[in-house]
Amino acid sequence: MDRRRFLGTSAAWAGVAGAAGLGTAALPERGWARSLESAAGPARQEGPLRLMYNENPLGLSPRAWQAVIDARGYANLYPEEQHEKLVNLLARRLGVKPANLVVGNGSTEILQMAIQAAAGPGVPLVLADPTYEDIMVYQAPHAFEVIRVPLDAEMAHDLGKMREIVDGARRPAVVYVCNPNNPTGTITPSRAIDQWIAEAPETTLFLMDEAYYEYADHPDYWSTMKFIDRPNVVTIRTFSKIFAMAGMRLGYAVTHEDTAARLNQFILTVSTNAFALAAGIASMEDTELVPRSVALNAESKRITEATLDELGLEHLPTQANFLMHRVGGDVRPYNAAMLEQGIRVGRPFPPMDEWNRVSFGLPEHMERWSEAVRGLRRRGVV
Amino acid sequence: MDRRRFLGTSAAWAGVAGAAGLGTAALPERGWARSLESAAGPARQEGPLRLMYNENPLGLSPRAWQAVIDARGYANLYPEEQHEKLVNLLARRLGVKPANLVVGNGSTEILQMAIQAAAGPGVPLVLADPTYEDIMVYQAPHAFEVIRVPLDAEMAHDLGKMREIVDGARRPAVVYVCNPNNPTGTITPSRAIDQWIAEAPETTLFLMDEAYYEYADHPDYWSTMKFIDRPNVVTIRTFSKIFAMAGMRLGYAVTHEDTAARLNQFILTVSTNAFALAAGIASMEDTELVPRSVALNAESKRITEATLDELGLEHLPTQANFLMHRVGGDVRPYNAAMLEQGIRVGRPFPPMDEWNRVSFGLPEHMERWSEAVRGLRRRGVV
Repeated sequence: MDRRRFLGTSAAWAGVAGAAGLGTAALPERGWARSLESAAGPARQEGPLRLMYNENPLGLSPRAWQAVIDARGYANLYPEEQHEKLVNLLARRLGVKPANLVVGNGSTEILQMAIQAAAGPGVPLVLADPTYEDIMVYQAPHAFEVIRVPLDAEMAHDLGKMREIVDGARRPAVVYVCNPNNPTGTITPSRAIDQWIAEAPETTLFLMDEAYYEYADHPDYWSTMKFIDRPNVVTIRTFSKIFAMAGMRLGYAVTHEDTAARLNQFILTVSTNAFALAAGIASMEDTELVPRSVALNAESKRITEATLDELGLEHLPTQANFLMHRVGGDVRPYNAAMLEQGIRVGRPFPPMDEWNRVSFGLPEHMERWSEAVRGLRRRGVV
Repeated sequence: MDRRRFLGTSAAWAGVAGAAGLGTAALPERGWARSLESAAGPARQEGPLRLMYNENPLGLSPRAWQAVIDARGYANLYPEEQHEKLVNLLARRLGVKPANLVVGNGSTEILQMAIQAAAGPGVPLVLADPTYEDIMVYQAPHAFEVIRVPLDAEMAHDLGKMREIVDGARRPAVVYVCNPNNPTGTITPSRAIDQWIAEAPETTLFLMDEAYYEYADHPDYWSTMKFIDRPNVVTIRTFSKIFAMAGMRLGYAVTHEDTAARLNQFILTVSTNAFALAAGIASMEDTELVPRSVALNAESKRITEATLDELGLEHLPTQANFLMHRVGGDVRPYNAAMLEQGIRVGRPFPPMDEWNRVSFGLPEHMERWSEAVRGLRRRGVV
């Protein structure tokens, strides 16, 4: 195979192995690029370059798209059988019982269900500032006492402060921890989380958002899934990121079966769609998908960090598929200037108003992003 | 075109015009059958015949499937642009403002949102018995005072009785009316509904479920959408039935914009999926889709009623894509006997335990169903 030609194809999937610096020996399936052309086609290319929503630039995997094609005759049918099939497969892969799983319309449905299940007048809801925003949306119509705790000096969750608040409340409380954290990309050391969970009363409900779990490789980071026997720990994952299915809507919780049953009181009667279920099953069965997404992300991260270092722009250590960096002033004019260059990045994440969040696209996207940032530097914008 | 060959194809879409007794003059698009083979393929055929979930047997329309194909590069992206496009198109078609619409993950998400928005200790929730079951699921974790009111002698909602309860409560109340009603298929005269709404205080919230609206042609039936200026009336529709998209999840509410905003406090941050949005837009733009679904349904209804009349099995007058009929005893053994014939029909809908609900499949499906019921008659089961 001509390596230059392989790298030169416009199809996102085909570009990965080459752009990520992997030799052909690391390519388990030589026909990948060809199967792409017949089955999946490239991810969307028109419009501004999307580096703002932490989406996986690979696009839906060819096998997942083939599964959608195969499921086209089911689009008119309620997908209960496919839902059951996905739940059973996921349970086997995670080594848990189907009753330990809640599978919903994206992991955000799990967050909403948990918030609804835990809502009560004055119940403390403790979360970082900044962190993923959906919890704040879902709590709005309820009567929580919301307490935002700034990230600590390491940009990790200030668990000590959060715990102080919860212990002081001496009543049921909800703790939300996004780890790695969105929008900062930083991790909160898992040892400290484990210690708090181990010592907490069952009245403290931990919502552990691991949307970016698969991207993290730091030795101080691991999952909270091992607390599956504690009814007060809910570990939340998604197919949106590592499996590139954000537009299809599929996510899940792993938790004690009593808690799963409680959460399911708030799920939609038909929550997941037939195509997401088909694609989700195929994606799980595709053993190349996660390593490819991870390798691609690592290469894009390398390019991004090198450019920021070159320009002397401070950036946070990321364990996710995005990072935050300083822009030398307010982020709003920076975002506007980048959009003029045809690149959508970030948005304000108060209180970090002088930081931008950039999502990792394909390596070639990050080269384009690098050129744009260098251009803004020449114009004194950044 | 050879009519016999046209009728003989196994593709569901292709069979409609012929099986429904329409002449070729009624076929606006001669290439329909061919475009089907390249684009959509037949709806699912394997397994037991599904006549139990009021699904549209046509399967996804070829144009909708083509739209999914065209959207395959968007599966990894959050679909906010497509959501906005669908909302705008739907608003134009209905002659309302986008702010009057709530578009969700199937109409059942609208029902759940409305229940959550209206929940409060002791709030009366008044609904028929039997009616569509999802409201009962969604109210379960809340503190409503649920009051079930049996259908009247005409199998219509007993609006007089329901109103008596609401008026007696002298406080906020929620009224759910499914019209045509599921599982009975019967309508509640719209004139009487209009009168109640016109005279009701704003503290009475009307959830008007019109999931089967497009199938109804009775002169006493019309929509409640005209009450869009009343904040206490929510009209709910779905893409699951007439558009054959039950597996894709798309539904909506039409209501006063203040009420839409209130309901949207309970919607998921990313509720609809990219493929459902693409298919929904294409389905709305496909002017042949609704008339075809309606014509097919009418023919299947004719076959079903004729068989029931032949066997002397009482059936309810239906305005939907299903009907209820007596089985001469408890419905459970009847359902089991039908499943042995490879046909899934109904389930118990208490208190109507001696009635079966059968959904209308393709006309050829109803011929197969007719043979099975005749067979059960010969064996004395029905």
